[in-house]
Amino acid sequence: MESIKNYIETNRERFLEELFGLIRIPSVSANEANKADMVRAAEYIRDLLAANGADRAEVYPTTGNPIVYGEKMVDPSLPTILVYGHYDVMPAEPLEKWISKPFEPEIREGKIWARGADDDKGQLFMHLKAFEMMNATGTLACNVKFMIEGEEEAGSASLGGFCSEYRDMLRSDVILVSDTTMISTEIPSITSGLRGLSYIQIEVEGPDRDLHSGIYGGAVVNPCNAICDIISRLKDSDGRVTIPGFYDAVLVPSDAERAKMAERPFDPEVYKKSIGVDALAVEKGFTPLESTGIRPTLDVNGIWGGYTGEGAKTILPSKASAKISMRLVPYQKAEQIAEMAISHIKSLAPAGVRLTAEYLHGGEAYVSPLDTPEYQAAEKACEEIFGKRPIPIRSGGSIPIISTFEKILGVKSILMGFGLEADAIHSPNENFPLENLFAGMRAIPLYFKYYAELKKQD
Amino acid sequence: MESIKNYIETNRERFLEELFGLIRIPSVSANEANKADMVRAAEYIRDLLAANGADRAEVYPTTGNPIVYGEKMVDPSLPTILVYGHYDVMPAEPLEKWISKPFEPEIREGKIWARGADDDKGQLFMHLKAFEMMNATGTLACNVKFMIEGEEEAGSASLGGFCSEYRDMLRSDVILVSDTTMISTEIPSITSGLRGLSYIQIEVEGPDRDLHSGIYGGAVVNPCNAICDIISRLKDSDGRVTIPGFYDAVLVPSDAERAKMAERPFDPEVYKKSIGVDALAVEKGFTPLESTGIRPTLDVNGIWGGYTGEGAKTILPSKASAKISMRLVPYQKAEQIAEMAISHIKSLAPAGVRLTAEYLHGGEAYVSPLDTPEYQAAEKACEEIFGKRPIPIRSGGSIPIISTFEKILGVKSILMGFGLEADAIHSPNENFPLENLFAGMRAIPLYFKYYAELKKQD
Repeated sequence: MESIKNYIETNRERFLEELFGLIRIPSVSANEANKADMVRAAEYIRDLLAANGADRAEVYPTTGNPIVYGEKMVDPSLPTILVYGHYDVMPAEPLEKWISKPFEPEIREGKIWARGADDDKGQLFMHLKAFEMMNATGTLACNVKFMIEGEEEAGSASLGGFCSEYRDMLRSDVILVSDTTMISTEIPSITSGLRGLSYIQIEVEGPDRDLHSGIYGGAVVNPCNAICDIISRLKDSDGRVTIPGFYDAVLVPSDAERAKMAERPFDPEVYKKSIGVDALAVEKGFTPLESTGIRPTLDVNGIWGGYTGEGAKTILPSKASAKISMRLVPYQKAEQIAEMAISHIKSLAPAGVRLTAEYLHGGEAYVSPLDTPEYQAAEKACEEIFGKRPIPIRSGGSIPIISTFEKILGVKSILMGFGLEADAIHSPNENFPLENLFAGMRAIPLYFKYYAELKKQD
Repeated sequence: MESIKNYIETNRERFLEELFGLIRIPSVSANEANKADMVRAAEYIRDLLAANGADRAEVYPTTGNPIVYGEKMVDPSLPTILVYGHYDVMPAEPLEKWISKPFEPEIREGKIWARGADDDKGQLFMHLKAFEMMNATGTLACNVKFMIEGEEEAGSASLGGFCSEYRDMLRSDVILVSDTTMISTEIPSITSGLRGLSYIQIEVEGPDRDLHSGIYGGAVVNPCNAICDIISRLKDSDGRVTIPGFYDAVLVPSDAERAKMAERPFDPEVYKKSIGVDALAVEKGFTPLESTGIRPTLDVNGIWGGYTGEGAKTILPSKASAKISMRLVPYQKAEQIAEMAISHIKSLAPAGVRLTAEYLHGGEAYVSPLDTPEYQAAEKACEEIFGKRPIPIRSGGSIPIISTFEKILGVKSILMGFGLEADAIHSPNENFPLENLFAGMRAIPLYFKYYAELKKQD
């Protein structure tokens, strides 16, 4: 694989310029105003696939954002790898916290700084360039298909339907995804599990207009106070979620499994320092890694109500709202959990307010077995690049579509991600180390090589 | 007073055009961007005073917004009335809820619709025109001084200092204020008491940036959840404020006094319907009128944190904030209550977050005796205009500066207001019935007449 290394060195500047072109398109899927940017980003990727050796490269419109499909079929007897990624990104707000502008990528301290630098434009770009390089060096060892969507950060609403409709076209042996983190380049890791997600939004409505807080305060139920009371009652003092039935389907891993997980290095002082807090709070009976990896939880993602401007406005607000999401573990069902949550929240609403709630999106948790050629090819590729056998980790994040792939396409996904937790994805100053970008570009061709070999032996 | 009635009829259109000119200036004191409008509004009032017969009319700059002073001294042996009002208004947000634009006054259904139509531009304008009419008809029975400020809705920060500095200039026998409501033109009332106010803002800060809620959720204290927990613990299930010491200075009126208050007509069904709620919630052991009139309370005026835009953003937010105000009764002290609240709130903050709090503004409650010439002149003036003896009411609202007047100037204030609760002050679609505007213009000259007479007998 010396030829891949040389290819990267020769083409390094062009690669970065191509990636920056993709990053500069503000493809924020949460924002309706960015509709045209979604199409531009999809077409940008289609054009790269076509230029880099794909037999087919097409943009499929959906009722949401378009999906890019590409393929190169080398030989029907070889295994087929379906590469999945997403070109949409999280909103960049709060903008004032960014050192350089979110959609104007900059290189500083050996890292690319921009929204999407890691999640997932940087990571999916590694696959586009690995594809180009395998074609250029004549080393493409598997058939390859690409499915790149534009709604991952907003719930992948169109992708399930796309998978059902194009089941035959998408036929493959494994789905390869780089949309997760590794511990570090010194301690490589592969994500063997993901939490699920159930995301709801609630609104508490009291009086039909903002009232004068002096004239009415004391007699009228205040929606801001009421929403605080409701949210406060969703977790108990042990950090457990109080929604009836919430834990019914949850399987606590065996002590042996928990012991293996505890081998993952974790320094609470370093962890706290990295996020600027002086204390953590976990579910009683579980470690921080367990609380984020194998336990479900509930977080308010946003709350708003009343007067939020400068100075003091003495109103008793008409309404208050909150976005609340629950991270799920096997075998919790996202929609069922949303129903339980909404029903419980409604039961907590006091007389004098009306509560409405909406399920925004979600997906089930995912666990990958470790004794398959699909996983072991990733293990070998990473070991060769980083010099150490990667450890399997359960991530707290969610890629809801992964469990959908298994359901609809009947294929397991391998989450070979090259991001770092310090990359600040979803936050201001998202970044991606160039070292990781180029390591990923080198690891992917190795995955293709080892997967072809292992499948042959299989 | 037939001459006053005729004068209004003859000058009605000009009066309205003058008032609309004042309303069109968006003098929102909470907003730094409106600084120049504050000066324009002050100068507008100064010019009206000068044109309407004042011996002196001046704009006094302050470190905040300017104060307008005017006077006409008829005879040193006559009593002197100091008229207080404010030209600043509340923010007009949410703008989309207004039927007509907040700073473009319209007359519909016999009412003026605009921000400030009632509070307090409409009500202070009654005094300017009463002054013009008494001068024009030769009936000015007292000396008169005007003190019109531009920071009432933001805490009257400059007015206390102004009163101290110009104590001699402001010397008077009574302060007359129209900045309150009456029950209706059928059931006239005079406000004999006001609640005080203590307004704070808190911020709960957790991680130093928004985090990915999947990767970190379960181990990190969420500031949005934490602020809900804190706020939820500020009132108990009986509707009582839990801040230690909060009720220490509160005097519960005697059963006889409470019985007298209960004579005020109150239909809970009409009240609920007027604000669009199906239930009220009061402090245990008190009626709705008592809960808003003679009991202190606590309300969240605004809350915000995390992602509040469209769609689903899966962050664990870095911080959350809230504006919280407490309405006070005699003899609670605003600053002391703020200190108690902040200290209690800090004690409720969990490990893993930093809590900061700020006292924004406040003022003490006020009670006016009913057996003085100052109050009785208002009683007689209203009885003559509305045909019924007005009943004294305790309002839940606050005009913090009223207790400051008593402390610094040693003079009682009479709150002869002509607004209605339906006027939606501080809310979208603020309005003021023309009937009330013109009734006020006729009642004020009667106040001057009766006050001069009663003081002579006194």
